[in-house]
Amino acid sequence: MSACPMDLYERLRAQGDAVRDIKAQKASKAEVDAAVQLLLQMKAEFKLLTGQDYRAGFPPAGSAVANDAAEDEDEDEEDQVDPWNVCTSSAKGVDYEKLIVRFGSCKIDSELVDRIARVTGKTPHHFLRRGIFFSHRDVHQILDAFESQKSFYLYTGRGPSSEAMHVGHLIPFIFTKWLQDVFDVPLVIQLTDDEKYLWKDLSLDDCRRYTLENARDIIACGFHPDKTFIFSDLDYMGASPAFYRNVVKVQKHVTFNQVKGIFGFTDSDCIGKISFPAIQAAPSFSSSFPQIFGDRLDVQCLIPCAIDQDPYFRMTRDVAPRIGYLKPALLHSTFFPALQGAQTKMSASDANSSIFLTDTPKQIKNKVNKHAFSGGKDTVEEHRKLGGNPEVDVSFMYLTFFLEDDQQLEQIRQDYRSGALLTGELKKRLIETLQPMIAAHQERRRLVSDDIVRQFMTPRPLHLTR
Amino acid sequence: MSACPMDLYERLRAQGDAVRDIKAQKASKAEVDAAVQLLLQMKAEFKLLTGQDYRAGFPPAGSAVANDAAEDEDEDEEDQVDPWNVCTSSAKGVDYEKLIVRFGSCKIDSELVDRIARVTGKTPHHFLRRGIFFSHRDVHQILDAFESQKSFYLYTGRGPSSEAMHVGHLIPFIFTKWLQDVFDVPLVIQLTDDEKYLWKDLSLDDCRRYTLENARDIIACGFHPDKTFIFSDLDYMGASPAFYRNVVKVQKHVTFNQVKGIFGFTDSDCIGKISFPAIQAAPSFSSSFPQIFGDRLDVQCLIPCAIDQDPYFRMTRDVAPRIGYLKPALLHSTFFPALQGAQTKMSASDANSSIFLTDTPKQIKNKVNKHAFSGGKDTVEEHRKLGGNPEVDVSFMYLTFFLEDDQQLEQIRQDYRSGALLTGELKKRLIETLQPMIAAHQERRRLVSDDIVRQFMTPRPLHLTR
Repeated sequence: MSACPMDLYERLRAQGDAVRDIKAQKASKAEVDAAVQLLLQMKAEFKLLTGQDYRAGFPPAGSAVANDAAEDEDEDEEDQVDPWNVCTSSAKGVDYEKLIVRFGSCKIDSELVDRIARVTGKTPHHFLRRGIFFSHRDVHQILDAFESQKSFYLYTGRGPSSEAMHVGHLIPFIFTKWLQDVFDVPLVIQLTDDEKYLWKDLSLDDCRRYTLENARDIIACGFHPDKTFIFSDLDYMGASPAFYRNVVKVQKHVTFNQVKGIFGFTDSDCIGKISFPAIQAAPSFSSSFPQIFGDRLDVQCLIPCAIDQDPYFRMTRDVAPRIGYLKPALLHSTFFPALQGAQTKMSASDANSSIFLTDTPKQIKNKVNKHAFSGGKDTVEEHRKLGGNPEVDVSFMYLTFFLEDDQQLEQIRQDYRSGALLTGELKKRLIETLQPMIAAHQERRRLVSDDIVRQFMTPRPLHLTR
Repeated sequence: MSACPMDLYERLRAQGDAVRDIKAQKASKAEVDAAVQLLLQMKAEFKLLTGQDYRAGFPPAGSAVANDAAEDEDEDEEDQVDPWNVCTSSAKGVDYEKLIVRFGSCKIDSELVDRIARVTGKTPHHFLRRGIFFSHRDVHQILDAFESQKSFYLYTGRGPSSEAMHVGHLIPFIFTKWLQDVFDVPLVIQLTDDEKYLWKDLSLDDCRRYTLENARDIIACGFHPDKTFIFSDLDYMGASPAFYRNVVKVQKHVTFNQVKGIFGFTDSDCIGKISFPAIQAAPSFSSSFPQIFGDRLDVQCLIPCAIDQDPYFRMTRDVAPRIGYLKPALLHSTFFPALQGAQTKMSASDANSSIFLTDTPKQIKNKVNKHAFSGGKDTVEEHRKLGGNPEVDVSFMYLTFFLEDDQQLEQIRQDYRSGALLTGELKKRLIETLQPMIAAHQERRRLVSDDIVRQFMTPRPLHLTR
């Protein structure tokens, strides 16, 4: 049972709707009574948890979900975070605590991290320990189900807009692989080549090529071939009537007004963009994959993704109960910073903003030395005396992503802060961490044959243990 | 070569765009010169044909295409014709001459009917002889190609919103079957079950059931099994990546502004409706059916349909050249009147507004006698003296659709007008025409097994003679 007020608020709202529906359908008195009873109990829990009475349209204090429009007006100073723009004025990057409040999600607190450790019997991934995955929706529900021997499945994805992926793109995949390993559950990976075709000046054949190249990098992350289905929208839409049915179901239950509000579409946008969110929503429902789940509707979906993708899944969670499906749960990550600093997300189109998975050891060394924004002082003397600032230092940030040893990382942090570790030395540590990591990735990628790609991308039954 | 000013105007506009594109792409001087030469020649032809100079944005006199918006304002007195509404205040029905001007299509004149007779070596269908198919786009192009041994294909369709079809629904199918027979070309028939799901309060399973029932009635019209592919959108989208690719291509090249202008969508419409027009557009391109046409892009499409479907194909024709495809040609029919009169189209939801394909001989007799709007006088004496008005008489209108013998029909018209034929006698003629026609349809339908339906609906190569 989640102790997140926002979750409870959402469930209360849904239960309120359910009671109204039941009454409207003139259900039996017993049914109405039971539904009302549940509503009253939830209201009591809400009071206990928040100290406030539940009122429809008034989310728990501190949340601003119901007031999105009003808030937007004086939001000029706030970070901008949506699927196409991530923008902040702070060198530390986006204020993620504020984002949790704005998006109405729940913080991944130590209690949840501990619970994941308990349920899986494994040390939580350092992305969890270090708050890189920092926010969630309904993950306690997933763990409840898992503890009572029910399964769930993982869904993540990528928009294949270029052949070369950068290390930032790996974050959701590295974490998803860990989740697949410790929970032993099936995974679907959506490559939104149709989205890229609609948004970019690319041909369908370009998008198709990027898809296959990206699939190779994703497979090289080590996903289990018996438990992983990777699909291109352009292919799978034409190979699965069940998928299209779910797309149409979502499309029937979302208006232009809604996508305008969520994604900022305008009247000049093409109708493909306007209806695309339904295509990213559909894999959140197990019935989109009958070859994997048969006709089971009780397999909930857990989506690890960067927080900028949340608008798609807020929409999905809103629609789910109206079309008879379970809401997907979510795990949100922070953004991976550009070499130039944490103000923006990395860009695949600027070769110097990122370390690419195709970079040579020499390129890695040069890029880090030349472009990684430093939190050090201007001179060695000053740095020794005053110490550096790891909070804005991109090399240190990258190490929090890729250096797994907590003690080493903490030592580096202290030494850099004290001035004992110079910027050049810190960069050297990062270079020594990235070079073997990228080389190993390239070696694994080299072994991914066309046949293996085809195998992962063939709609087929997966290995389900529960 | 078509002698229709509107066709030439459209080609001129397209050629103007082409010249601009070629110049923008800094093509070779030779290429630019050739394109400009063609443009000048077309302008000369335009002057010859219309007596006016060609000016972009100013269609030939008598046409109002470029002024749709301005015209809408004082259009209260005009007929309303779009895919969801057909409305007129005249008992004679919609003013089709005006519609040709408003839609910017071309009239099917005796010259075109004669040409069809010449090219096919067959007597033109009575729907052509009697102006039931009254308007077209680019049919001369189709005939040009056909005469130089190139093929084309037919595309028509239906939104399966109920199990029972009425006789009005047969009109495009009867005519399409005739076209298939005399031209010996392949035919695709789209059943837009996704559209019906999006627009109506129906489940996907309802739509699926209606689709199969409707397919049975369509097959009973006598289409050639080796040359006809019938498909449900819900199925074919999930069975053909090529179809989805064309849908996405169209969706990329049409904005919300455009569909708002064409179809009157609003911000409160669901995103499924907003993007649906692309799904009705896609079958206009041969590459949507690789199992039939391989990778041939040179097979033009001819669409026989009621004029209310034209907005979909105006949009399609606008997009086609921008995605490298041929514009579909069109043949437009008038509306089939309701028994109660020609002011509205028949409705499948009002059992008494139509003769259904499931009606018994007795039901047919009762409906015609009870509900068919009469152009006769109030008393026999008056009728004998003054004569009836066949132009508003629904029984006479129905006979123009279903009584094939021109001489008999003309005799009936004259006798009714003179008063020699009473309303009861006219209705009897109609009943005697409909009863065996419907009975024969029911008998043919009875013979359409599940296997035959499956055969028609299986994506497969068709028999192409050219």
